[in-house]
Amino acid sequence: MVKALVFDAYGTLFDVHSVREKCNEWFPEQGEAISQTWREKQLNYFFLRQLMERYEPFDQVTREALRYACKANDVTLRDEAEEELMEAYLNLDLFEEVEEVLSQLNDKKLVVFSNGSPVMIDPLIDRSDISGYIDDVLSADGVKQYKPVPAAYYYAQQELGIEKEDILFMSSNPWDISGAASFGFRTAWINRNGLPKEELDIQPEVEYENLKGLLEWRD
Amino acid sequence: MVKALVFDAYGTLFDVHSVREKCNEWFPEQGEAISQTWREKQLNYFFLRQLMERYEPFDQVTREALRYACKANDVTLRDEAEEELMEAYLNLDLFEEVEEVLSQLNDKKLVVFSNGSPVMIDPLIDRSDISGYIDDVLSADGVKQYKPVPAAYYYAQQELGIEKEDILFMSSNPWDISGAASFGFRTAWINRNGLPKEELDIQPEVEYENLKGLLEWRD
Repeated sequence: MVKALVFDAYGTLFDVHSVREKCNEWFPEQGEAISQTWREKQLNYFFLRQLMERYEPFDQVTREALRYACKANDVTLRDEAEEELMEAYLNLDLFEEVEEVLSQLNDKKLVVFSNGSPVMIDPLIDRSDISGYIDDVLSADGVKQYKPVPAAYYYAQQELGIEKEDILFMSSNPWDISGAASFGFRTAWINRNGLPKEELDIQPEVEYENLKGLLEWRD
Repeated sequence: MVKALVFDAYGTLFDVHSVREKCNEWFPEQGEAISQTWREKQLNYFFLRQLMERYEPFDQVTREALRYACKANDVTLRDEAEEELMEAYLNLDLFEEVEEVLSQLNDKKLVVFSNGSPVMIDPLIDRSDISGYIDDVLSADGVKQYKPVPAAYYYAQQELGIEKEDILFMSSNPWDISGAASFGFRTAWINRNGLPKEELDIQPEVEYENLKGLLEWRD
């Protein structure tokens, strides 16, 4: 019997590429490319830092990734632009179905568990239209280890005080859903981008196009 | 005083994208795209397995990445094609300057240190034109942990029996050169693709366009 629904934030509840408009204001017609590189490099950097055992919080990683993305796209990032773009990350758009779905799941314990450090994830949730539905916001920064390492999911489980088999975890990120399944959470892959199934020896329990699928989910 | 020159293999000595011709034979005009996805997914999978603490050797990871790349590019991978493409990975092209440069460094101890498992990396070196110049071939499979974790570089150092400050490590892969520098090797980044410098708090000691730069390197 599932006792908590735990959601990843970036890419799952919130569209990280909603920063492309702000990128376009500073760098006309390059917003899409910069946003893509920014996200790719953000992922690359926290994977790399975790592997090298050089943890730094997600806000620093995100800032470094932005600087790299601008260099890679041959644009100069002025301090004012950097601050505005970092601020944009605190105001990402929710995917369109999220609020409606969460409002219908309100009889469950709803939790966000993100790699985002508290200075990033807390304002993002607080300012969003779903803050009233979320019972708890957990950050991997609490254990200073990034998903998808087992220690990160273990931290979340301990914070919740629930058996891992009683936690249903949702993420759109293949590496995150694989990590959660490998750790032992129940998993629903929110495959927003229609990606192929991973060729790994662990698989999510179910797969949905978006969060609406959860409304038909049964234990 | 540097006592050993240690080279990464894939992307540094050998062009992983030389498989594109064989990919094109099986999947006309899609060789480039499949080769790109194959390499990206290979990197993604060994990072992910290392993070999830689910090590499997590089030949399995490479095979799984190939299967994914074919699905992602909407082509059917028949068994015969899979075997031929995996075989192509044992016959990658050397980058054009490699043999000439290594022949001029023959007074140094020359070592290959790769994430490739022995069944992949040994035949690749043996069949190549540089096998006569290479004194030692080390695989991260010996410690069952992938670069860029410190334990992998430590393994190589122990195998060589040389202080880490006396080892000069070369890689074209930014994550590999960062990992090696973080561990404490001296480092020369072979930046074949003209990538921007990483936005990290560790940097390679020198940067060259290709291995020819090593001929001007002085302790």
